[in-house]
Order: sequence, then structure tokens, then C-alpha cells
Amino acid sequence: MMRIPGFLSCGISSGIKKNGKKDLALILSEVPAKAAAVFTTNVVKAVPVLIGMERVKSGVCQAVLVNSGNANVSTGKRGLRDAIATTKLLARKLRIDESLVIPSSTGVIGVYLPIEKIKNAIPELVSKLSEDGLMDACKAIMTTDKFPKYASAQIDIDGKTGTICAIGKGAGMIAPNMATMLCFILTDIEIERKSLVKALKKSVDISFNRIIVDGDMSTNDTVLMLSNGFLGNKSIKERDKNYKKLEKILVQITSQIAEMIVRDGEGATKVVKILVKRTKTQKEAEQIARVIGSSLLVKTAFYGEDANWGRVLAAAGRAGVKFNPEKVDLYFGDRKVVKNGVEIMDEKEVNHILKQTNFSITLDLKSGKSSYFVIAGDITMDYLRLNAHYRT
Amino acid sequence: MMRIPGFLSCGISSGIKKNGKKDLALILSEVPAKAAAVFTTNVVKAVPVLIGMERVKSGVCQAVLVNSGNANVSTGKRGLRDAIATTKLLARKLRIDESLVIPSSTGVIGVYLPIEKIKNAIPELVSKLSEDGLMDACKAIMTTDKFPKYASAQIDIDGKTGTICAIGKGAGMIAPNMATMLCFILTDIEIERKSLVKALKKSVDISFNRIIVDGDMSTNDTVLMLSNGFLGNKSIKERDKNYKKLEKILVQITSQIAEMIVRDGEGATKVVKILVKRTKTQKEAEQIARVIGSSLLVKTAFYGEDANWGRVLAAAGRAGVKFNPEKVDLYFGDRKVVKNGVEIMDEKEVNHILKQTNFSITLDLKSGKSSYFVIAGDITMDYLRLNAHYRT
Repeated sequence: MMRIPGFLSCGISSGIKKNGKKDLALILSEVPAKAAAVFTTNVVKAVPVLIGMERVKSGVCQAVLVNSGNANVSTGKRGLRDAIATTKLLARKLRIDESLVIPSSTGVIGVYLPIEKIKNAIPELVSKLSEDGLMDACKAIMTTDKFPKYASAQIDIDGKTGTICAIGKGAGMIAPNMATMLCFILTDIEIERKSLVKALKKSVDISFNRIIVDGDMSTNDTVLMLSNGFLGNKSIKERDKNYKKLEKILVQITSQIAEMIVRDGEGATKVVKILVKRTKTQKEAEQIARVIGSSLLVKTAFYGEDANWGRVLAAAGRAGVKFNPEKVDLYFGDRKVVKNGVEIMDEKEVNHILKQTNFSITLDLKSGKSSYFVIAGDITMDYLRLNAHYRT
Repeated sequence: MMRIPGFLSCGISSGIKKNGKKDLALILSEVPAKAAAVFTTNVVKAVPVLIGMERVKSGVCQAVLVNSGNANVSTGKRGLRDAIATTKLLARKLRIDESLVIPSSTGVIGVYLPIEKIKNAIPELVSKLSEDGLMDACKAIMTTDKFPKYASAQIDIDGKTGTICAIGKGAGMIAPNMATMLCFILTDIEIERKSLVKALKKSVDISFNRIIVDGDMSTNDTVLMLSNGFLGNKSIKERDKNYKKLEKILVQITSQIAEMIVRDGEGATKVVKILVKRTKTQKEAEQIARVIGSSLLVKTAFYGEDANWGRVLAAAGRAGVKFNPEKVDLYFGDRKVVKNGVEIMDEKEVNHILKQTNFSITLDLKSGKSSYFVIAGDITMDYLRLNAHYRT
């Protein structure tokens, strides 16, 4: 994992997870960093999300305290007191203002934070901060993840080499409770706050917001980006050529993490890009793509490597978008399987495509110029095994 | 199964299903019957649905020809020609007008109807018509159903005993392709066409339209009701006291069939009533109930008999309805598990409830006077096994 100038991190085991694995992470910028964040749109929001939403309004953040193993949601006033207490203690230890600490949590719902464990762990956490601690932090935010998720890139900004690094967590079903998605993106590149917010929103929109599967964001979902300006470049604004460069890299990095989340899955064996094209509006394409990508029958067909194009068409048909089914083409990979609503599939060729881990399906409505894609995983026996008994 | 005066039925094996099971059903009224129907709202509609929608406009129907094993959808112009040809042949054999025959199909998508097999079977089909043939018809419309589904009742109409009988099919996941839901309701009670339409719509709305699970109706879903007036009662109109009586019985019968569909499941082990109450509008309650009932995480928790109330709240939170999570109560059965957004669960008591096959969960938003319920099944290993490889 790359070092990002001016950032220190670490991840330790504080005892929140009963199995002794790492469960507490800290990211610290040596100076207050410009901050932008995208939080869950769920009406039920975790306590740390509520605090984060408030604190990030200032546009600056210096430390991020993340625990796994406990989501601190549906914990009422006590949950709020607990979260604030941890950030207060950490801020005192770091000698920074409490409002510069953003807390974040992932894990089970409705259980009070084991506040003493966290308090007791803070001295160790701070003492272990290091330029090379980001991988440990990455591990400490994992829950059902099978592997740590990170991505990084360097870009040339007016002759200087800037670094962007992201760590993420989340497994497969980006959906309430289970699979909270967290992502923390750090960069030493100086960027105007307004432009930072804009670039982050855009990259989230075409990465994390495209991996659906069974619903919207969870109660804890958070993407937070910090820019500490250690590169010393001229602050990037939206109209600069460097902005486009930065945005492109950001989209790449967030898309990488997003795809890792689908791939990690909870038992997922497939990563399928579902592209709906030539619709009248992008909204229509999005509606259809999301219904296809969320359809249990489609997802079980992926799992079964079954070229069940009928399920794809039927899912499209119930998306609430009017279209002419007799004009529709459907592709599995680059093979056309339905032409003007009627099957023309070469089953052998298509089976070969479905056996791959990554493939695409494309639905062409031939009625406009808009398009939209989502990335979906399959639903497997392992998914059920994992989710039927997760909480207990 | 009860006889319904003036109706003959039968079900035979025509060879559409490779396993030799019954796959062709016929229902005949001795005279043209008043007809009302509710069809799928899917944009992709099966050929027989398109024909049925057209023909039922006349308000009369005398014969219903149903095949299982083939849905006749996404079969283009040839599919249309095929379906019309079968009704034409049947009409000729029955010596009735072709427009009085409504076709219906359920099974795999995108395969042409084995038209010769159906044509060849029509003489046998007609010859086997009988007053006691409805159970055979009921069996002949089954696909993945584990048991035949029927319900009946008798009611007093001004001193005469009228009969209502329904046969249905559909297993668990009322969703595209797999689990087409068909229901045919027969009665000898005379009822004005307009009132028949109204009563049917109402009963469908609070029965079949409440068993969700992973989406809306399939491409073939059909509920068709025939009233042949053999009872000789004074035609029932909406303002009559007999109308309320009839409507009530109709709701009971369709609800019974609907619940059987959930119970049959595709591997389902639970039938859960999800009630959302005290919302500002019924629409809000419906939105929330449907998201909870469709949530994979909620449904796998049912399967695991896991009192995972957090998943229920989180699903509610992403339904697109604003509410105050700190005011919400949640019940499993009659046990309150969340009070004002915070857990107060007696786990032992609740586990006992979750071990039952039928139970309810109630979400109380305390912000209005509206409510809505849905009936949902769980998602099980058997569901996956069945659906991952259904088509091939």
C-alpha cells in the first residue's frame, strides 16, 4: 500500500470482535484536511453517520475513528453519547478539536457500543499511528469481507506526483444491516472544497451507487474523502484541466473498490455488468437496470449459469417503464440472444460466456439515446447460509 | 371439490410436459357467462394474456383453455398465430364462437407452443368434460406447485344456495417467468357485469396483490371470473345487500388461494404477514410493507428464524418514506421488540414465535391512521436449488 504524505493510520484489536481480529482503525492527517462525504440516504441512520453529517459541514476533518463489529444504530440517546465520548477522548489524546474527528461504525444493529473497550484502546491506537498503517486500518474495518479492499493511484499535477489512496469494506449485498459499505479516500493533492465535493459525488454516483443488489444504501454507508494539500500544488478548481484528471482517477479508484465489494460478495460467484441502452431517458434506463440487477430470479440464474433470458425480459417489463417488447434486443456478453423480442440464441456460445466470473448483459430498447449500467452479483447457497444466521 | 351448476371441466396430459403429467385444462360454461378478469401489469405480456385482454372486453366468455409447461411469451407473431389456432379449433369442436374462448398459459418463456400436441389433444379434452372435472383441471394448470390449490364456498342468496369455486396455481415467488399466478373463479350466482368487475378487482387487490415477494406480476398472471347465472337469482348489483356478501366471500376465497401460493413456495418454510400501521397515507404503508416483504435480508432472517429486527427497520428506512425512526415500534407476533426505535426484545419469547410457520410482524409508525399489509414467504436453500437451474 502506498504512503500518502501527511497521513498516518493504524488498525488494532480492541476486543469489540469476539474473535480477536482487528476492529478499530484510526486515520489522522497531520493538518486539518479538506473533507467531503457522501452518506447513506436511509431514513434510519446510524449514530456515527448523524455525527459525521454534522461535522463534515465545516468542510474540514483531521481524524477518522472507525470501529467494526458494532454499527451503533438504533441505540438511541445512549448510542449518541457513546459515539461522542469516543471522539472526545480521541481528540484530547491527539490534541485536536473534537469537531475535527469523524466517527464511523459497521457491524450489528441495535447493540450498544462497548465503550470501555474503545476508551481503553485509544492510547494504543494513537501510539501505533504510522505512515505505513493504512493496510492495518483497512483490515480493521472489515466485517464479513473475505479480503481487504484498497486501491491507489498517482497522478502528475503540474510536474508534482500526487497520491490518492482508498480503503473500503463491504461484501456483496450492499443492503441494510449486513453489508455496510465504507470507503475512506485520502489524498495529498490540494483541491478546492467545492470541487472536492463535486468530484466525490460524481465518482460515488458511477461506482458505489451502481452496485446494487437488494436495495439502497445501508444505515451506515459512508464515503469520506480527505485532502490535506501536502503536495503543495495550486489548489485545483473545477474549471482546471487538473480537475478532469483527478476526477477520472477518482472514478477509477472508487469503481475498483465497488467491484471488489461485488466480487467479494457474500458467497457471490459472478460479477455482472447490466447495461440498458437506447432508452428515452437515463432515468428509464436506470429503473430497468436496477430491477434486472435486483431480481432474485435473474440472480439465481446467474448463479446457475443458466441463459435464462426470459427472466431478464420479464424483470425489465415490470420496471414501470413503457417500452415495446417486440423491438427489444438482448445480449449476453457480445452475443445477441434476443432480436426484436424473439430468441435467436446459440446456447453453446452463451453458456461459455455465463461460465466466466465477469460478464455483461445488454438490453437494447431502441427507443432513445440514453443508457445506464449497474454491477450485480449472483445469489448463492453461501449467501443464504451466511445471512440466515448472521445476527445470532 | 364442489360442483358448480352449469360448469364442466377437465384436465388431461397432452404431452407438453415431458414427464407425462397433466398439462391441458378446459373449463366450459353451458351458456356464455359474464366474465371479468385482472391481468398482469407487466409490459412484457404473454400472447394468451394479450388475447384474453381483448376478448374479455365483450364481458362474456364461455370456455377457458389453459396449458401448463409453456408460457407462450416472447414468441412473436408465430406465438399469436398458435394461440389463436388452438382457440379456433376448440371453438369449432364446442360449436361456440371463437371469441368466447379465452386461452391461458404458464411455463417456460420463449419457446413456441407445441401446437400439434394441443390440436391432437382437443378431441379428448372435450370428450372428458364433466361436472366433476375441476380437480383434474386444477392439477393440469400446475407447474412447480407442490399441491393443487382450490377453495370454495356456498352462500345464501335470497333463499337459494349459490356456489363459488376457485382453482389457482403459482408457487411462492410471485415473480416473472417462474411463478406465474393463475386463478379461475366460477360461480352460478347471477351478478351484473359492472359489479362483477368491481368485486373481482377488490378481492384481487387484497389477496393476490398482497403476496409479494420479489416483484410484481409475471408476464402471464391472470385472474378470471365467470358467472353463468344458473342459480336463477335476481342479478346482484353493487347497491344490494347481497353484493357485500358476495364480495366478502370472494375476498376470502382469493385470500385462501393467495396464502396457499406463498405457503407452497418454492422451498418456502414461512408465511409472514407484514403489517405497517399508523402511517400518514396508505401508499406510505404499502411502500414500506413491500420493501420489507421483498428484502432478501429480511427473508433470509425469516428462514434462519433469526429475530433480526434491525434488518426490518433498515428495510423500512430505505422505502422512500420519511418517518422518525425514534418513534417507531416493532412487534414480532404480539411481542414488542422495538419501542421508540430502541430494542426491548425478550429473545426467548420471540424465538418461539419465529419457529412457527405462520406469524406476523407489525411496524407502528405512530404518525397517522393508514395501514397496509403484505404476505411474504422466506428465501431458502430449496428456492435457490430450484431456481438456479429451472429453465435448462
